[in-house]
Amino acid sequence: MRMYDLIMKKRNGSELTTEEINFFVDGYTKGEIPDYQVSAMMMAIYFQKMNKRETADLTMAMVNSGEIIDLSGINGVKVDKHSTGGVGDTTTLILGPMVAAAGVPVAKMSGRGLGHTGGTIDKLESFPGFTVDMPIEKFVENVNKDKIAVGGQTANLAPADKKLYALRDVTATVDNLSLIASSIMSKKIASGAEAIVLDVKTGSGAFMKEEDASFELAKEMVDIGTNVKRNTVGVVTDMDQPLGYAVGNILEVKEAIDTLMGKGPEDLTELCLTLGSHMLVLGGKAKDPKEARAMLEETITSKTALGKLKEFVGAQGGDSSYVDNPEKFETPKIVEEVLAKESGYVKGIKADDVGRAALVLGAGRETKESIIDLSVGIMLKKKIGDYVKTGEAIATIYANDLQKKEVSEKILLDSYTIVEEKILPNKLIKGIVTKNGIEKY
Amino acid sequence: MRMYDLIMKKRNGSELTTEEINFFVDGYTKGEIPDYQVSAMMMAIYFQKMNKRETADLTMAMVNSGEIIDLSGINGVKVDKHSTGGVGDTTTLILGPMVAAAGVPVAKMSGRGLGHTGGTIDKLESFPGFTVDMPIEKFVENVNKDKIAVGGQTANLAPADKKLYALRDVTATVDNLSLIASSIMSKKIASGAEAIVLDVKTGSGAFMKEEDASFELAKEMVDIGTNVKRNTVGVVTDMDQPLGYAVGNILEVKEAIDTLMGKGPEDLTELCLTLGSHMLVLGGKAKDPKEARAMLEETITSKTALGKLKEFVGAQGGDSSYVDNPEKFETPKIVEEVLAKESGYVKGIKADDVGRAALVLGAGRETKESIIDLSVGIMLKKKIGDYVKTGEAIATIYANDLQKKEVSEKILLDSYTIVEEKILPNKLIKGIVTKNGIEKY
Repeated sequence: MRMYDLIMKKRNGSELTTEEINFFVDGYTKGEIPDYQVSAMMMAIYFQKMNKRETADLTMAMVNSGEIIDLSGINGVKVDKHSTGGVGDTTTLILGPMVAAAGVPVAKMSGRGLGHTGGTIDKLESFPGFTVDMPIEKFVENVNKDKIAVGGQTANLAPADKKLYALRDVTATVDNLSLIASSIMSKKIASGAEAIVLDVKTGSGAFMKEEDASFELAKEMVDIGTNVKRNTVGVVTDMDQPLGYAVGNILEVKEAIDTLMGKGPEDLTELCLTLGSHMLVLGGKAKDPKEARAMLEETITSKTALGKLKEFVGAQGGDSSYVDNPEKFETPKIVEEVLAKESGYVKGIKADDVGRAALVLGAGRETKESIIDLSVGIMLKKKIGDYVKTGEAIATIYANDLQKKEVSEKILLDSYTIVEEKILPNKLIKGIVTKNGIEKY
Repeated sequence: MRMYDLIMKKRNGSELTTEEINFFVDGYTKGEIPDYQVSAMMMAIYFQKMNKRETADLTMAMVNSGEIIDLSGINGVKVDKHSTGGVGDTTTLILGPMVAAAGVPVAKMSGRGLGHTGGTIDKLESFPGFTVDMPIEKFVENVNKDKIAVGGQTANLAPADKKLYALRDVTATVDNLSLIASSIMSKKIASGAEAIVLDVKTGSGAFMKEEDASFELAKEMVDIGTNVKRNTVGVVTDMDQPLGYAVGNILEVKEAIDTLMGKGPEDLTELCLTLGSHMLVLGGKAKDPKEARAMLEETITSKTALGKLKEFVGAQGGDSSYVDNPEKFETPKIVEEVLAKESGYVKGIKADDVGRAALVLGAGRETKESIIDLSVGIMLKKKIGDYVKTGEAIATIYANDLQKKEVSEKILLDSYTIVEEKILPNKLIKGIVTKNGIEKY
């Protein structure tokens, strides 16, 4: 088999066989096939597309290019959740305890990575002493005991995906549905997921700006899941503005605690109930999303989910007393309101820019070496549809540096669009994609 | 300017500016832009095409990537001829002296390269003592004195083209009209050509198998010429069978001498008269191809073209007495006829296979290191449309090795298709392409 022939075949619009896809992914991972042939192949795929079978084969070839985490020691169906990324997205900290409290094992492998705010591990490290540093046996034991644990991603998962993504990123071949979907799914599957709930964001703050494209991406990933026998459900959700009010690590942890106490923002609570209900169904704990939703609401009213948070934070060395006494979390030196410069209805809040306003304060990593300031961030006070008067606070900035605060404030003010006419808030849950098809709400 | 943005732009179907094309060709030549970005660009160009302006810009960017031979010291319009490659193509050895005898300077830069038989220089070295080893000043002096000289390609001509072609060759991005045409034209222009006559081969033995595609390639190259102010004419000619009868170095030289004496094969003579007449018109020596043709016929009947061959071979150190005494050329040990195994009309002779039959004997180079045996080769005796009886000779093999002869004979026999029904020979000249358009005959 020669890579040249495979490029030619795809270029001419033919389907690649399973063997051919394995050959090129394997050869590329091992460094036997050069970058320049693979980038030509990626561009040929961009134009000629891949069908469902090829996309599933590419996914599994990438899964098999590295280690696959063995979670077989965990009792129950291992259901994982993945979000395509957004701003102020604290769902994992809320969903995890809720779903665990309802009896579905949550074995979460998380990373740190770059971003506007820290990753799930960074946020959990707001609890003094919390660590993900444990052997896989201990991790499995914790999940079996508490139904929830968060581990660090140390294994060499889907190295072919890393290498391919890095190449696509510099050759203008990122935005192909098959390539995006297989990249996401390969990492989830290599992490040991048996079933997957996808939160596919749509809107100005999402990777996919257009709703139709978001549904297509969800469909593509659900189809991969179906093809490779991982039950998968995709929920398409709004990211035209940040989720909840908090953007920043400690601020988001506090918001998560509020939500688990039943006092969280409406949108964040709704999203967690929706995603969680599908996790319960896939995990075999509820017969349908409606029954599952009731079970999850019960974990909040009964405070069992809040108890789970304390339990697993404690089990991983964290000081869980902070859950009951959130005032113990560090507060930065500067806490200042951002005042509206005009009156009207909030029409839009550019989520990306709010994220950037938090990043400027030190809430996230610009490079791998950046050190996160867990205490800084932004609390929004006005969201889409809200009325605001000139001089009224639209947000509060938490900062440790006056100059950074000023830059952040400017970005934040610019991120708001305020208009005279009344604005209706966006629908949060746009629809759902299962192996049976697309259902738009 | 970033290469990433240029790939994205072309991928999305936009036109690249002159500056953008210069940027990427220049950056690639210098090694500042990596192979993997350029192969992605080539694949994007394959799908999105380039327009005439972009194609001309790419051509000139490749010309300017290296040395450009300065032929300004030569009096008259420097008209070059280029053939897209075929089998048994001895035209340069015949055309050169004819055109020179008619007064148009022939400053031929030639290579050795790989191929079924040697290049023009290899063939000329059949004359003992012949050399292309001379400084450019001497080359220019010879052309001004004799109207003809053949030099070796020592300059670093269009290195961007070499690098791009090598990359396209391994990434399935060769067959795009703009890329093929700009590759050919860049080398001709860098060689100092002011006007160009293109012999675009079509048929089973040509790079372009389909007549329509051959006309399109000719049109693409003529359009480049027009855009960059090099008057260009394309002649599309048949390569469904080898040209003339001889395939092999000394055999082709002898056939060239025969042709200059007016005793050459009809097709070879006709091709030389057609190509040569356009060269004379472009060189300003005749007002139209008809007048030019009469002038060229005169160079044969008067033997002035034959005299030119002797003159320039002698001027470059070769023993020109061989022209008048071709029996002095070496004859190999084995000279054997190949006999037909069936009776009928010759319907086709796979030119590529005949070339391979000659290569097997040692007539060409398989690798750069191969040593050519100038004496070996094949003389065809039957061509398309001819009737042949079982046991009658279809060709003669000239060999120095019995085993190689046997392999060659087998390939040769297989290259012939013999049928019962009468076959009409192909039309040799399929049409002509000028800046005014395509004229099919």
